Order: sequence, then structure tokens, then C-alpha cells
Amino acid sequence: MIIHKSTNPRISSFDPENFSFGNTFIDHMIICEFEDGKWGDVQLVPYGQLPFSPAMMGVNYGQACFEGMKAYKDKDGKVFLFRPEKNFARINKSASRLAMPEVTEEMFLEGLKALVDIDRNWIPQGEGMSLYIRPLIFATEEALKARIANKYMFAIVATPAKSYYTEPVSVKISDFYSRAANGGVGSAKAAGNYAASFYPTKLAMEEGYDQIIWTDDSTHEFFEESGTMNVFVRINDKIYTPPTSEKILDGITRDSFIALANKRGIEMKIEPISVKAVVEAQKNGTLKEVWGVGTAVVTSVFQALGYKGEKLMLPILTLEDSFALTLQKDLVDIQTNNAEDPFGWRVLVEKNILETV
Amino acid sequence: MIIHKSTNPRISSFDPENFSFGNTFIDHMIICEFEDGKWGDVQLVPYGQLPFSPAMMGVNYGQACFEGMKAYKDKDGKVFLFRPEKNFARINKSASRLAMPEVTEEMFLEGLKALVDIDRNWIPQGEGMSLYIRPLIFATEEALKARIANKYMFAIVATPAKSYYTEPVSVKISDFYSRAANGGVGSAKAAGNYAASFYPTKLAMEEGYDQIIWTDDSTHEFFEESGTMNVFVRINDKIYTPPTSEKILDGITRDSFIALANKRGIEMKIEPISVKAVVEAQKNGTLKEVWGVGTAVVTSVFQALGYKGEKLMLPILTLEDSFALTLQKDLVDIQTNNAEDPFGWRVLVEKNILETV
Repeated sequence: MIIHKSTNPRISSFDPENFSFGNTFIDHMIICEFEDGKWGDVQLVPYGQLPFSPAMMGVNYGQACFEGMKAYKDKDGKVFLFRPEKNFARINKSASRLAMPEVTEEMFLEGLKALVDIDRNWIPQGEGMSLYIRPLIFATEEALKARIANKYMFAIVATPAKSYYTEPVSVKISDFYSRAANGGVGSAKAAGNYAASFYPTKLAMEEGYDQIIWTDDSTHEFFEESGTMNVFVRINDKIYTPPTSEKILDGITRDSFIALANKRGIEMKIEPISVKAVVEAQKNGTLKEVWGVGTAVVTSVFQALGYKGEKLMLPILTLEDSFALTLQKDLVDIQTNNAEDPFGWRVLVEKNILETV
Repeated sequence: MIIHKSTNPRISSFDPENFSFGNTFIDHMIICEFEDGKWGDVQLVPYGQLPFSPAMMGVNYGQACFEGMKAYKDKDGKVFLFRPEKNFARINKSASRLAMPEVTEEMFLEGLKALVDIDRNWIPQGEGMSLYIRPLIFATEEALKARIANKYMFAIVATPAKSYYTEPVSVKISDFYSRAANGGVGSAKAAGNYAASFYPTKLAMEEGYDQIIWTDDSTHEFFEESGTMNVFVRINDKIYTPPTSEKILDGITRDSFIALANKRGIEMKIEPISVKAVVEAQKNGTLKEVWGVGTAVVTSVFQALGYKGEKLMLPILTLEDSFALTLQKDLVDIQTNNAEDPFGWRVLVEKNILETV
């Protein structure tokens, strides 16, 4: 790894009590360039701008995918990543589907640890606080030909984070727009999937909703995801979540929720969820909870589902009564080293890694 | 318009007999930045790299769309654009679907003419030659939040072009992968649509095909597009092309072919094309031609269709017998000022526009 430490660090001006999530960047980033069929040296450099042309294939043809993950600081100041090997596996799955080169463990996991270690002072401490980390791969070749690019950049950038949804939200069940095609790229964290969702989400917001529950594009009869999250439904005391497929992201928070529900002995069914069954359960009072899960917010609890002009209200449950909030707490306690970690999910970020690499 | 002419033009080293399409860039480009809710000044500047961060939303969330268009030089050296107002309308349609700001006529059409004029010496002359022009809009804001960006760049870059398919190609009718979802962004020239197509195309190439005929993602029973082109099928003496929709690009070459077929009195049906009907027509000898149309190649004639492991061969017709080649010639003759232009499609690029702006 090549190290160029910032000569002008901004950390002294960072106020962990008062910062803007998403556009406050830590002092460094990881970059690595792919050319002539191979990745070059991994570099840790000051965060900032690099020279790219508007003919860059990443913005012309959308060969770009990313991961979202977090580092947490416990009460003693120790720093942990959460299941980073899952993000490593998934970015390569996304890369393959987009015909991009896979990254190596050294680039991804060692790069990640080196970056989090050197900028550990940027990680805010306390409930809901974390460092949000964004590894990404994008095509950098300058060429106006719709074909697989020959040059790429792998980068890791990061921003301090508070959890960003707190209040229960209202979501609209989509009856026209969709996020993924059969045989498409819905299961990849492909850049283009997100852009495609913004306009339908804007329309839903204009109707008074916060986000969209995406349904299958052929019939709109089955739940797929919610916003940028996987979706869970609780009817009576059973939890349901759709199976992953080429259309549905294999979420790491989703996978963790399933494991935690199993551990608690909560019945968890991984099967298609029909809109009809959810609407019926709401009508007959057996629909207890619907929520989304993802790295950025962990859990987003829904207070209402919009469907064909009707607003179906959901009960607001206490922490004890809510499976969503109970499992969220179980997860956050493991992530932040407030509980045992029976699954081996936490990965400690050692101090001063760079001196040894 | 703000003009910064290149102080180091590369035109003297450009050999119009020997250049590489797609990565030979003309001396200048147009750029314009969107911030605080509005577009800034249109700038004509030397082609090159600009500073962007890996946190740029365009490569993280895929808010990026483009156009492809050409300028042609006639035998007297006069330069023409082809139906540029259609590209202008379409880039704004794409931008809207991706929740991006629309561009103005001044940015798009005046920018285009100024760029083509100043770099007119880069336009190669002769059969099949042109300047391929790429207007694009992409999100430039640095932020790790999956939401509509607040900063964008509009740019126009260009590369000299020869036509790049010449030989008839073999195409595979897709029975698993697809390029567009119902309620998705297939009709937009969204960057992400292209990346999604690369891996399935690579697999088809490994099976000996050159590209894919995309079918509907729900049933794979109907043609949608072919590669990055609209698709036409001729059975006996009738031509068929699928209707445009939110899944199918409203191609300018497609529209021009329809008008030219009408003018010649060739029967043209705009209706869904079923795979079954095409396969049956091939078996009973009534399938005369299948071809793709698009700006880059104008026409790509297919010599074989791959379907469920079978390779269905197509006749190779002469120019006189082929509707595809006849309509292609009609179109190219108009584009290159070798024929009357009854539709008013050609737009002359005046000389020394910049002195008057």
C-alpha cells in the first residue's frame, strides 16, 4: 500500500455533535486503478478530487457499483467493522454482473482497515453514531463506445453518520413504477438502480409518502424491496421477507435480521409476500408491523402503507412489543460492542495498522 | 457563451484516414454546470479532464444520461447535423425520468453548433464518415446519500467516426436476461441501461453471437430492442417494429426509417413482434430480413438469429432486394446531402458562429 498522508487534515475542525451526514468527508480515501488487465497499487491518499473526463465511461454507460457499510466506536474507543467480508463478496458479485473486474481482498479489506484506522478520530461515539463507508468501482476509461471498459477505479470514501430516519414513515406500494427487471440487475448494487428510483420516489413524496415499496414489475402483486432497503412484514407473530433473486438485493442487514430472529425463536418465513395478503391482514387486524432494513438506517418502521389511493394505517408498537425494534436493538448492540457476538460478526480495527503494512 | 480556445490544438496530428473511433477526441468540448437550482454559463473549452471526486453522485447513484448524434460533411465541405431538435427533446425526457434538471435550447443546440463549427476540421469526409457527438448530463455533487443530486454537469464531447459494423451479424434472442422493466427506465438513454447489458452481451458473444435481441422481461415472447438499437423485422414485404413505450427507446433513426418506408410506400406495421411469429416465418421462408437501427451504425443487418440453442439463418439480400439497405441508403443520402431533404431533417452548421455569439 502506498501512503500519502494529508498535509492539511481537517479533523480539528470536525464537530462530532454537529455535522452534516453524507457530505462531510474524512481526511483520506483509498484509491486503486485498473489498467492493462490488472489492478495497480492500493493508495491511501488525502480525500479529494481527481482528474476525470466527461467522456469517462462510468458516467456515460453506468459501469459503476458500490457498497455501503459502517464502522462503530464502542464506549472504550475501540473501532469495529460489521461483517465486512459480506460486503467484499457482494461488491464482486455486483462487479461481475456489470462486467467489471473483481477487487482483491487486499484492496477491499486491508484498504478498509487502513482507512478506518488512520481516520478513526472521525468516527463519532455514542448511540446511533458511526462512520458510513462507501467502497465503489467505476469505469474511468475515456471512450464513446458502448462496450465493457478497460480502465476502472476502485475507491473507498467515508462520512461520519448519525442514523437518519427516526420517525416512523409512510410508504407507497408501487402499482406502476418498478426498480428491477427479471433478468436485470436488481440484485447488484448498480449505480443505475438508484437513479431509476428517484423520480418515482419524488412522485410518491408529492402524494405525502416518504418512500416506495417496490413490487414485481410484471404484476405489481408481490413485494420486492422498500426504498433502498429490504422489506419485512409481520402478520400475527410470524415475520415474512421475500427470497433474494436476481431482482432483490442480498442485504447484509436482512441476513443479520433473519439470524437474530432465528436466535430469538421468532418464526421467520422467507417466501414471496403478496400485496393482497398484506392488505387483507391490515383489514382484519393481523398485520402488526412492516419495516425496511439496510446499512444506512438499520431499521425504518412504517406507520402507513399507501395502496391504490387508500392509506392503510399500522399500529405503533413499543420496543417490547415490536419485533422490528427488538431485532434492531439486538443488531445495534452487537455492532457497537454492547452485547456478546455469538455469530462472530464484529471485526476489530487494530490501531496503527499502517506501520505494519 | 464563454470561449476558451485550445492553445495546444491536436488537429494537425489527426489523420482522417487512420484514427480510432471513440477515443480520438476533438480539440474542444462544451461544459455547463448546474448549481443552486440553475444552469451557469455555457463554456466552450479545450477537451480534457476536470476535477471530480469518487464521491461524485453520478458514479455512485447513476444519475447520468446521454445522447448520440452525428455531424456529416458533404462533398463541398458543408457540415450538417441531423434532426438535432429530436436529441434535444429526448435528452430532456431522459433527464426528467432520472429526476435531473432539463437543459436549455441554448445549451444544447447552440452549444452543439458552436462546438461542431470550431472543430469542423475534425469531421472526416467521405462515405460512412462523420463526427459522433455525445451530449450528456451527470450528477457531480459529492454526497453519500441516495437522493436526487443538487449539482450537475452538462457536457458535449465528440469523436470522429467511421461506421463500425459492416458485416452482417448474428444475434441471440434473449430468453433470460432483459434490459428494461415495466415501469422502469428503458426508454431513457440512462447510463445504467448500458452497463446492465454488457454481461449478457458478453455471454452471448461466448456463444458465438455479436449482440442480443432483448425481449420483454415478463415472458421473453416479444422483441424489444437489439443491442443498443431499435429492431425491425420484415416478413414477406411488410416491415414490423415494436411500438415505443417506457421500455423501448424512441429512436431517431427508427423514426426516420418509418418515415422513409412510408415515403417509398413500403408497408410498415408498428406493433408488438412475437418471437414465435418470427421463428415461424423463418421456418416457412417468409422471414426476409431482421435488422437494427441506431445513430452509431445506422443499420446493422442480421444474418442469423439464435433462439433456444438453434441458429436460424437469414437470407443475405442485395441492395435492390433489401428494405434495410435501401432505407439505410435513403437515410444516409439525406444525412450527407447527397439527396433532397423533403422532411427538413438536415440542419446546416454555419461557419464562424462564435464570432457572432
